[in-house]
Amino acid sequence: MKIEEIKNPKFIKKLSSKELTTLSKDIREFLIDKISKTGGHLSSNLGIVELTIALHKVFDTPKDKIIFDVSHQSYVHKILTGRAKYFDTLRQFNGLSGFQKMSESPHDAYEAGHSSTSLSAALGLALGRDMNKEKNNVIAVIGDGSISNGLCYEALNQIGDLQTKLIIILNDNNMSISESVGALHNHLDKLRNKNNYKLAKNKTKKILSKFPKIYNVVRNIKQSIKKLYVKEGFIFEELGIDYYGPINGHDYNDLITYLTLAKKSNGPVLIHVITEKGKGYKFAENDKTGVWHGVSSFDKVTGKIISSNDSNKTSWSEIISDSIIRLMNEDIIVITPAMETGSKLTKFKNMYPKNFIDTGIAEEHALILANALSLEHKIPFVSIYSSFLQRGYDEIVHDIARMNSHVIIGIDRSGIVGEDGETHQGLFDITFLLPIPNIIISCPKDSIEATNLLKTAIQASSPFCIRYSRNKIEYKKGEIKKIPIGSWEQITKGKDATLITYGDFVNESLEIIEKLKQDNIEVELVNARFIKPIDTLYFNKIQKKNKPIFVYEESMKIGSLGSYLNTISNKNIITYGVEDTFVKQGSRKEILIHLHLDPESIYNNIKKELKR
Amino acid sequence: MKIEEIKNPKFIKKLSSKELTTLSKDIREFLIDKISKTGGHLSSNLGIVELTIALHKVFDTPKDKIIFDVSHQSYVHKILTGRAKYFDTLRQFNGLSGFQKMSESPHDAYEAGHSSTSLSAALGLALGRDMNKEKNNVIAVIGDGSISNGLCYEALNQIGDLQTKLIIILNDNNMSISESVGALHNHLDKLRNKNNYKLAKNKTKKILSKFPKIYNVVRNIKQSIKKLYVKEGFIFEELGIDYYGPINGHDYNDLITYLTLAKKSNGPVLIHVITEKGKGYKFAENDKTGVWHGVSSFDKVTGKIISSNDSNKTSWSEIISDSIIRLMNEDIIVITPAMETGSKLTKFKNMYPKNFIDTGIAEEHALILANALSLEHKIPFVSIYSSFLQRGYDEIVHDIARMNSHVIIGIDRSGIVGEDGETHQGLFDITFLLPIPNIIISCPKDSIEATNLLKTAIQASSPFCIRYSRNKIEYKKGEIKKIPIGSWEQITKGKDATLITYGDFVNESLEIIEKLKQDNIEVELVNARFIKPIDTLYFNKIQKKNKPIFVYEESMKIGSLGSYLNTISNKNIITYGVEDTFVKQGSRKEILIHLHLDPESIYNNIKKELKR
Repeated sequence: MKIEEIKNPKFIKKLSSKELTTLSKDIREFLIDKISKTGGHLSSNLGIVELTIALHKVFDTPKDKIIFDVSHQSYVHKILTGRAKYFDTLRQFNGLSGFQKMSESPHDAYEAGHSSTSLSAALGLALGRDMNKEKNNVIAVIGDGSISNGLCYEALNQIGDLQTKLIIILNDNNMSISESVGALHNHLDKLRNKNNYKLAKNKTKKILSKFPKIYNVVRNIKQSIKKLYVKEGFIFEELGIDYYGPINGHDYNDLITYLTLAKKSNGPVLIHVITEKGKGYKFAENDKTGVWHGVSSFDKVTGKIISSNDSNKTSWSEIISDSIIRLMNEDIIVITPAMETGSKLTKFKNMYPKNFIDTGIAEEHALILANALSLEHKIPFVSIYSSFLQRGYDEIVHDIARMNSHVIIGIDRSGIVGEDGETHQGLFDITFLLPIPNIIISCPKDSIEATNLLKTAIQASSPFCIRYSRNKIEYKKGEIKKIPIGSWEQITKGKDATLITYGDFVNESLEIIEKLKQDNIEVELVNARFIKPIDTLYFNKIQKKNKPIFVYEESMKIGSLGSYLNTISNKNIITYGVEDTFVKQGSRKEILIHLHLDPESIYNNIKKELKR
Repeated sequence: MKIEEIKNPKFIKKLSSKELTTLSKDIREFLIDKISKTGGHLSSNLGIVELTIALHKVFDTPKDKIIFDVSHQSYVHKILTGRAKYFDTLRQFNGLSGFQKMSESPHDAYEAGHSSTSLSAALGLALGRDMNKEKNNVIAVIGDGSISNGLCYEALNQIGDLQTKLIIILNDNNMSISESVGALHNHLDKLRNKNNYKLAKNKTKKILSKFPKIYNVVRNIKQSIKKLYVKEGFIFEELGIDYYGPINGHDYNDLITYLTLAKKSNGPVLIHVITEKGKGYKFAENDKTGVWHGVSSFDKVTGKIISSNDSNKTSWSEIISDSIIRLMNEDIIVITPAMETGSKLTKFKNMYPKNFIDTGIAEEHALILANALSLEHKIPFVSIYSSFLQRGYDEIVHDIARMNSHVIIGIDRSGIVGEDGETHQGLFDITFLLPIPNIIISCPKDSIEATNLLKTAIQASSPFCIRYSRNKIEYKKGEIKKIPIGSWEQITKGKDATLITYGDFVNESLEIIEKLKQDNIEVELVNARFIKPIDTLYFNKIQKKNKPIFVYEESMKIGSLGSYLNTISNKNIITYGVEDTFVKQGSRKEILIHLHLDPESIYNNIKKELKR
């Protein structure tokens, strides 16, 4: 069967063991071939081939609903649900998404791009099913890295309490993106150890042989198997969720047996499946650092990753990481929520292991941990992707900014991130940070400014964000010096108008300025390297020119720098609201008076503005 | 000893058993007396008297650091650290904070107002201590409700992994604010059951009697006690954290014994302490619904709560809750993250128990659960305080808004909340929601509009936020009718200027308008009941008047409605950024061109604007 011709997963029902094995082999070849050209998430998809096929053998999508956590491991599912023919457009503009996408197929029951949402989503779909008196199955497939996030715990806590029928597949490859960390991981390690695993497998076979019609005696067999597998106190059992495992995620017999058992269960079940990331492609199998997790195009024979033309360029992540090393002192603590590889922190970790903390996928915890470390006079640098920083919004407001703590946040992957699409765009960070008091937001135009901003941040005393994109740029090094906080920089002079921008757009704007010059329009280009606080003196000068002002941003337009500048410059619309400060306790009336927001103050101000 | 004269907790060290008991009695009387006048968090503080005193007997603040989770239960700690004399100003403007506050006292090691931050903070302080080669103890005191939040799990996961020396006191009163829910709670229930508890207590006594110098044989005694207490698989033990308990939180002997044991431990320890909320004040002891959790002033003899003068007024929470009942249909599902009482949802729960879900303190999970329910054609109404919605920001962006799901969010306690202070102000919601595509944000001026907006929300098809404050207003009922989405309302006519506002400020502005009228200034008052989308037609009309426009908001000024209106009205500063839409996948260049944000597009637009 040609992989491209698969229309839907029905054909799998009839396949023999041998045919299933052939199918996995064909799909692996297809994946390696296609991803070697387009790039994409290789390892996780190679690891989940048998599991995905087994899911589609036992369950019936779209009636049954499979949610892939994060969902970059849904390629096999996409292939089996009729989307193989679009794989040449994978992750491209107007092409196939690299994630589950409801608009692509009715077989996609949910959408994700951030980790750990699948269990809450599964519970919601299952409760909705029960309310609607329907009978379908809901299955969440989640990795051992993702399940360590707090959101999953909240979901498990309610799933175990409500005893809702749903199935959790814990896809355990002992590696989230980089190596997994955390106590849960240690716990899984125990369960995963070889002897335990083999023993369990042999004993299961014996038990199964005693029950010829096993599916009619689910309850009994469950009890028997559990006694063997669950030594003591497995966390999921304690939370009220039936645990089976660990089972071999590349063994169709095991997979189909346990999935069928789970299907017959009336409550929540978790199947602990051990898979090997990169399975079937030796280069990816041997990967320990995650380079084959999300990979660009490569030579499938030699395993050589095809570097882009910009080999003389360096990623912002690497420039920042290297700058930390250059500016290192013993108080600096680098914290990452499981993004050591993505944020290029491995070199730092190896040089300063005691100053490096990987919290696992735990953005909220990472930020409060940093805040508390700053109270102990450490200088935490939290490296975090813009889109994932969203999950720590409350901790930035309630903890870091409200206490005005000296925490540096390196906002990686800000702006347009490209192929990962909607869920990964870093376009909201400025808009959610700008209204928060005490916060400094900066964005370097080049590598020298990046290092200088980092030096400035290290010597600051407030929360200090440095925002950088997924782009690669030339890594120039210069003399390292502090930049006055809130200072902007004139890049070109120009009498006819002003263009204010920051980050990668500064360089790209030079092109605009040049073209306008050829049209005899002279535009002043301003590098607004501080988005907050702004350079008030300079901005006032710009306003006094009385010429058009343009603001050009790689950010949502609503609520970003341009919006802020408009508010403070425009005298046509006068806004009364809470000035840039945290508001203390008191009665509503007292506070309104204190903020000059009581009717009396507004009355007086309006009258003054109207000059009567 | 007069409670007001306590300067610091040193005196406790010398107190005998009997004197400790007297001290608890005096403090309880003091608390009941003071809170009966000022209002405040009564029950939780009455429940923690012995525990707090025992903590200060065993540990030495400020060297040792005690973090109270949420910290509304830190009153006894405030009393013991010299702040009793300020209790008349509790929660008042410029008065004593109702929460831990580092600026009040060096004995306050951290600050909080939102739940579940204490474990991450404790780990940060403990790691910082170790890095600084200091020797102090770090103690987090956390309730059974708070510990069910995902953030705590993230922290426990790392605490158990790193094996850092710190002490967690699980203050278990079997009740967060309303009754606790969740699988962890069920698990605690098992451990807490009477027989287990008594048995453990008697056996402990026997063991302790065998070890005359118990503190030198900590390791042995720990093992012996653990065998008795920990039946099997207690979650904390599985995560690598030593568990002791449950112990009686009102028994000084038990408390001091176990706190001393914990102090000697070299790794993380959790002590499970059972306390009774409201202990020593019969009215609060018998409270099952949480009315004595945060209470206004009351008659301490009769336990009668003194109602304010506005007894003819109704809280917004109650108006919304009652409106849901009036508009109820079988698909509506009300979801609350542990705020049943605060958000006045008990009546709804009793009438429609199958349509009511309390997730426990789990804002993130609650929002994704709602999102998935909407995919099953349910109409979820998530009732959530503005300040706590902050913790669900990512789930709003990544799940609800990106999928454009029909989820209604009732943003309770928005705007200025008063006595709870900085951590509870609902001043950020508009600023973080406004830049998110697909979201509808509304804010009613009165009860009739509230009901109408709710009807509109129920019949909408996008994420729909209804924002209301902690105020009380008159509950008027009228004919229920839909309001066109995005429509504003003219309240008064006026040729000289326009005042745009929403929510409680609409009524309060009438006063302003009236006064201006007396000065011969006629101002048009506009009820911007939709903050997004705005009423573009009406706003254009207002602009065409060419008169001053004022925007008056109970919100942070940066990034709120006024800021947005300025951006779209002002032609002096032209902003280029991402329009109000989620940005799909593609290369950076493709996306920039698609968004008209590439240098070529900007060049063309600038040229056009400059009309050359």
